[in-house]
Amino acid sequence: MVVNITAQRRVGVALLGYAFMGKAHSHAFKAIPHFFHPPPAVPELVVIYGRHEERLREAALNYGFKKYTTDWRTAVRDPEVELVDNSLPNNMHLEPTLEAIESGRHVVCEKPLARNSEEARKLRDAARRAKVKTMVAFNYRFVPSIQFARQLVKEGTIGRVYHFRARYLQDWLVNPSAPLTWRLKAEEAGSGPLGDLGSHIIDLARFLVGEVEAVTGVVRTFIDERPLVEDPSRKGRVTVEDAFAATVEFDNGAIGTLEASRFATGRKNFNNLEINGEKGSIEFNLERLNELRVYLREWEDDGLTGWNTVLVTERRHPYIDRYWPSGHIIGWEHTFINEMYHFLKCIVDDEDVAPLGATFEDGYRCNVIMDAILESAKTGRRVKVSFS
Amino acid sequence: MVVNITAQRRVGVALLGYAFMGKAHSHAFKAIPHFFHPPPAVPELVVIYGRHEERLREAALNYGFKKYTTDWRTAVRDPEVELVDNSLPNNMHLEPTLEAIESGRHVVCEKPLARNSEEARKLRDAARRAKVKTMVAFNYRFVPSIQFARQLVKEGTIGRVYHFRARYLQDWLVNPSAPLTWRLKAEEAGSGPLGDLGSHIIDLARFLVGEVEAVTGVVRTFIDERPLVEDPSRKGRVTVEDAFAATVEFDNGAIGTLEASRFATGRKNFNNLEINGEKGSIEFNLERLNELRVYLREWEDDGLTGWNTVLVTERRHPYIDRYWPSGHIIGWEHTFINEMYHFLKCIVDDEDVAPLGATFEDGYRCNVIMDAILESAKTGRRVKVSFS
Amino acid sequence: MVVNITAQRRVGVALLGYAFMGKAHSHAFKAIPHFFHPPPAVPELVVIYGRHEERLREAALNYGFKKYTTDWRTAVRDPEVELVDNSLPNNMHLEPTLEAIESGRHVVCEKPLARNSEEARKLRDAARRAKVKTMVAFNYRFVPSIQFARQLVKEGTIGRVYHFRARYLQDWLVNPSAPLTWRLKAEEAGSGPLGDLGSHIIDLARFLVGEVEAVTGVVRTFIDERPLVEDPSRKGRVTVEDAFAATVEFDNGAIGTLEASRFATGRKNFNNLEINGEKGSIEFNLERLNELRVYLREWEDDGLTGWNTVLVTERRHPYIDRYWPSGHIIGWEHTFINEMYHFLKCIVDDEDVAPLGATFEDGYRCNVIMDAILESAKTGRRVKVSFS
Amino acid sequence: MVVNITAQRRVGVALLGYAFMGKAHSHAFKAIPHFFHPPPAVPELVVIYGRHEERLREAALNYGFKKYTTDWRTAVRDPEVELVDNSLPNNMHLEPTLEAIESGRHVVCEKPLARNSEEARKLRDAARRAKVKTMVAFNYRFVPSIQFARQLVKEGTIGRVYHFRARYLQDWLVNPSAPLTWRLKAEEAGSGPLGDLGSHIIDLARFLVGEVEAVTGVVRTFIDERPLVEDPSRKGRVTVEDAFAATVEFDNGAIGTLEASRFATGRKNFNNLEINGEKGSIEFNLERLNELRVYLREWEDDGLTGWNTVLVTERRHPYIDRYWPSGHIIGWEHTFINEMYHFLKCIVDDEDVAPLGATFEDGYRCNVIMDAILESAKTGRRVKVSFS
Repeated sequence: MVVNITAQRRVGVALLGYAFMGKAHSHAFKAIPHFFHPPPAVPELVVIYGRHEERLREAALNYGFKKYTTDWRTAVRDPEVELVDNSLPNNMHLEPTLEAIESGRHVVCEKPLARNSEEARKLRDAARRAKVKTMVAFNYRFVPSIQFARQLVKEGTIGRVYHFRARYLQDWLVNPSAPLTWRLKAEEAGSGPLGDLGSHIIDLARFLVGEVEAVTGVVRTFIDERPLVEDPSRKGRVTVEDAFAATVEFDNGAIGTLEASRFATGRKNFNNLEINGEKGSIEFNLERLNELRVYLREWEDDGLTGWNTVLVTERRHPYIDRYWPSGHIIGWEHTFINEMYHFLKCIVDDEDVAPLGATFEDGYRCNVIMDAILESAKTGRRVKVSFS
Repeated sequence: MVVNITAQRRVGVALLGYAFMGKAHSHAFKAIPHFFHPPPAVPELVVIYGRHEERLREAALNYGFKKYTTDWRTAVRDPEVELVDNSLPNNMHLEPTLEAIESGRHVVCEKPLARNSEEARKLRDAARRAKVKTMVAFNYRFVPSIQFARQLVKEGTIGRVYHFRARYLQDWLVNPSAPLTWRLKAEEAGSGPLGDLGSHIIDLARFLVGEVEAVTGVVRTFIDERPLVEDPSRKGRVTVEDAFAATVEFDNGAIGTLEASRFATGRKNFNNLEINGEKGSIEFNLERLNELRVYLREWEDDGLTGWNTVLVTERRHPYIDRYWPSGHIIGWEHTFINEMYHFLKCIVDDEDVAPLGATFEDGYRCNVIMDAILESAKTGRRVKVSFS
Repeated sequence: MVVNITAQRRVGVALLGYAFMGKAHSHAFKAIPHFFHPPPAVPELVVIYGRHEERLREAALNYGFKKYTTDWRTAVRDPEVELVDNSLPNNMHLEPTLEAIESGRHVVCEKPLARNSEEARKLRDAARRAKVKTMVAFNYRFVPSIQFARQLVKEGTIGRVYHFRARYLQDWLVNPSAPLTWRLKAEEAGSGPLGDLGSHIIDLARFLVGEVEAVTGVVRTFIDERPLVEDPSRKGRVTVEDAFAATVEFDNGAIGTLEASRFATGRKNFNNLEINGEKGSIEFNLERLNELRVYLREWEDDGLTGWNTVLVTERRHPYIDRYWPSGHIIGWEHTFINEMYHFLKCIVDDEDVAPLGATFEDGYRCNVIMDAILESAKTGRRVKVSFS
Repeated sequence: MVVNITAQRRVGVALLGYAFMGKAHSHAFKAIPHFFHPPPAVPELVVIYGRHEERLREAALNYGFKKYTTDWRTAVRDPEVELVDNSLPNNMHLEPTLEAIESGRHVVCEKPLARNSEEARKLRDAARRAKVKTMVAFNYRFVPSIQFARQLVKEGTIGRVYHFRARYLQDWLVNPSAPLTWRLKAEEAGSGPLGDLGSHIIDLARFLVGEVEAVTGVVRTFIDERPLVEDPSRKGRVTVEDAFAATVEFDNGAIGTLEASRFATGRKNFNNLEINGEKGSIEFNLERLNELRVYLREWEDDGLTGWNTVLVTERRHPYIDRYWPSGHIIGWEHTFINEMYHFLKCIVDDEDVAPLGATFEDGYRCNVIMDAILESAKTGRRVKVSFS
């Protein structure tokens, strides 16, 4: 029988930017119908915008866009487009996002919304006036364990909040020969790890605890000059901070610290936060995003004074019912992607499935060993394994 | 510009089974082109087979198959099909897999290959005679950290192997009212956790250490009767084991233990193994599949006597170059799937992006706080945050 | 005012053996009155026995014994002795322990009780007939978290037990030039890690779960010959196993595995066990003995599906009320031993307290920084620290 | 043979204060000769001072002091006293410490040295002028893993330091009915967690990284009034902070954060710090004081990108050669203290050694099971265990 899918509602997407975020966002649009049944709509990857035509063409092919263009206005105004995804560098947030809003497209814009609060206010104001939906892509709000943490806070499980401490640490600038990309230039990025990483934890602070009332802060640039991207034999000036540290006061009385760095050796993408409340506490670490550590004072009554490493893979946890059974973490599906890629490659290139893939000989031997264990269990004797 | 993708080689896939493994496998086929550039071929989801027509139709729609059928022979012999993926229960491995091999299709078959070694030998023999590619879906061979572990063993980094200990533990049968599914019937499943979970760790033992020479074992069925699926008010007999424990001897002299259970309370999908060698050791835990714990004796010289929790997310690690940057674990991409689903739903159902999604107001406030931190860093003063 | 301590009950102790266990046991006797108030009695270290007079004399001095002797009968029969502590090698358990029992002394004997069950039965029979108290020094029963684990099992918190798995792993024999000590000779030790380490986990299995009904097992000796202690240029034969692995069945129906090795590279003193019951599970690791990991199914109702790392340092935990306040782990006291040793050494040898010890200059500077933080909190300004 | 110990050098100790620190310090003095051979001197516990005579007398007895007095001057000036240990509350640091210095005694004073920097300077100046040894009891400098961390920093193993972040968190004030002890009164304590806990991490910052140049900070008192110790039905005002958070700048350019709280629910004595340097990083957690987590960039070359959990129990680690063999953590000795206490109690009170202690019956059964495992290994058969 042939499947009829024509009846489904479709939403045309224009993606601005094909790099890191472009890859992540386009994957997300495509994955929605596989996991969310029925999807609110099937996203249609209409057009992708970028500056370098060759890489752009390749991205369009790999990610599955119908069209590509090196003019962002063309992408935004494409008649098939209902949703604009702005994944461009920070200095390209203002204009295309305004344009998209004004031309009646829904817009999701990468974080931070803008290079500074003045630009951000313009975007906020435009969004207020418009009828379209707008969202800033603070994606960590959508980690199931973060949403579960929010539930625990909002429902009062941990009571009044006293402390919030968050650090988002990376180390890719420790190497002095790392090049001077746009992320290190104030003109393009606005700020360094403050905007890139700090904006995430500031947003999570507000998402989980409440409004910020005051801050103190220090910033540091550890390495002033770096090789130019376009000519590594020459150097240019780093014009953003390499790290920041801050204290934070919330309007509900809680206090804490915020920190981000690209010089925290050994921390690859360490987004770690802790909330202490009067009845309990919560800890999160992005590098183990399927887990949440929770402490409840009520457990102390039974001597069970400790932090519970909650495995956030149960049906009752946010979004998890869409994915895999209990205990199968999100990310587990990559075992199959790699496996089927291997098999496909063996088929097309006529290569041996072994030794990486398990042959039917391997499957047979596994069954022999299983039978031997069952036989030993029955006879009470050590069983020598032999294959025929 | 329009993207031309017609030139790509395509491989037609028939999927037998639409349940758990059907969902995972079909997702994998679709994800390959997004991550592997260029893919060896673009898998084409031609036809899916299942017994219950309604659920089958839905699966075909959700997973993106062109056709569906309730006759597995039709699926296997479909002229567009080059690759058959047998994800059916164990008692349906033999016949359809033989048929697929004999009709010249490449076959990947779910594990264990068969209900017992006699059946498995038939399949092995058929695969030997045929020209097609065959593989058993021992997917944990394709966890990047498992393949990295194998490299460490094969390259001699941990030296001669002394011990291997593995346990694969789940707890979904602890509840006595869990129903009597096919997995609990010997006729259909062959065995219980021995085949379902034990086969994985037996295969990993062979993949990582070498051939098995002898075993001793015990099995136990803790709860003898369970409610029938078709009528929960009646009970039927459990005819497979609930758990097994075994000692194992390898032909290279190493010894160890193997264990699997569906009664290990608190262990949701805990596939944990350890290898001890003369120069080092390795530990793996599937619930943290982006990590590998490694010990090397050479570190002791500097007093750094300890286990290194390797974050297997670097370009040099197997398969990782296809995915995300350093520190962004596999699984991280789900933040975007959930996020874009949310936005899409807000657009289609005309719902508010807040409070789950970050509005432009949130984005603006984040920028204001960032500016306050920078101002404090410059002036050395506490800055009160105010929004306009 | 002068303290009068003459009224306290005293128990005279003879210690047989001055090596590793001699050091640990004599420390324990001396520490009792410092922590247990009032102590049941003040142990008096009367006499210590050993074979090498020089080392023996030193041990007597260091550990605080009044007398020493190279004849164990003299020690056992010393009229001041009420309690004999037999910490000798396994082949010296039988005779001195029998002698002590027969001469009316209370005896604590190191584990395993004997080289084999025949010897052990003789000791058990003698103990049955006698009026004295006898104990085998299975000290891990006295880890607070192990006793807390036992409470959880006995009180039914984790329900009917399904599984027990324990491994006690060390790696000091991985080095092939490790010498052929008495522990590697069957004549003196009886067995290898089976008796040395395995006896501990067998005892814990019985202490925590119940009686053992049946076993299967394998043993392995990986390195057959080793340098003689008395002449490292010559080699002698290793006559005990280097490792064992076993399955175990309990009379209450539970099954599991036991394992011990001296070849588990990277495992220094890794005594790790797990119990799975119908309502919960427990995990313990000796290298983190202040912790216990507990899982309770009831937490699942609130989505708190996880293992709680209980910090066993609360007053309600066994023995802990005798030691330090909440959160101050046992072992924390060594910070003070090392510190006061340092200060004493500086006094006696007229050395500088700095840089290891904190001088009053350090103390002053610390206060200045504290004042600066308070000032910043008050004024809202960054405060430069300056010392005068 | 009788042991002659009269030749040893002795140092007379006066201890001011018998509470928490009194217990910890007097234990340390007594333990030195057991572990350090030969000790620089044998500390003699001469006299202890306190205000409440009854508790004082008991402390003198329990800790082993010859005399006690309720007049601190008497203690300080006792002719047998060479070393004064000031473990009194902060408002009693200045006068007795000055007196001790001036009367020619060596002094170790608890931290923080004083209630404020003015008092502290007086003590520093007196110490400078005097010939005696003085030390502030920042005991965490003497954790073996902290000293090992310092070695790694000083020897350049982690290179130039970029970041230091430390937090010392407790939660004993979360309960609103916790009483208003001296620690909550500014007059006596000077400050709250800033002085009590913050002084430790400030000192460790200076010990591990270098001098502090500037700070910003916030403090908070969450609960203003608490029940009086002397009359819980009445309340008094809390006059110190409940928590502080600060940014810190070092004179070598590093930046970071400092934080301490008594309101961090679930954190019992969580003193956690991290140092990021150009070549590596270090992390420490007091609740697992036998461990140090170390990251070195050089490991990345082999794909071993991770944090090494160093078990600081090897002879090459600071102080550890004085204690137990490899893998036997400091704290392990308490198993014996508890065990021998149990046995002593059974002897004196004529109680059964079972079920907590292992009887000779238990010892015998353990041997039987060991023999069964050996027999199974030899015969290849399951062995039923039977006891006679």
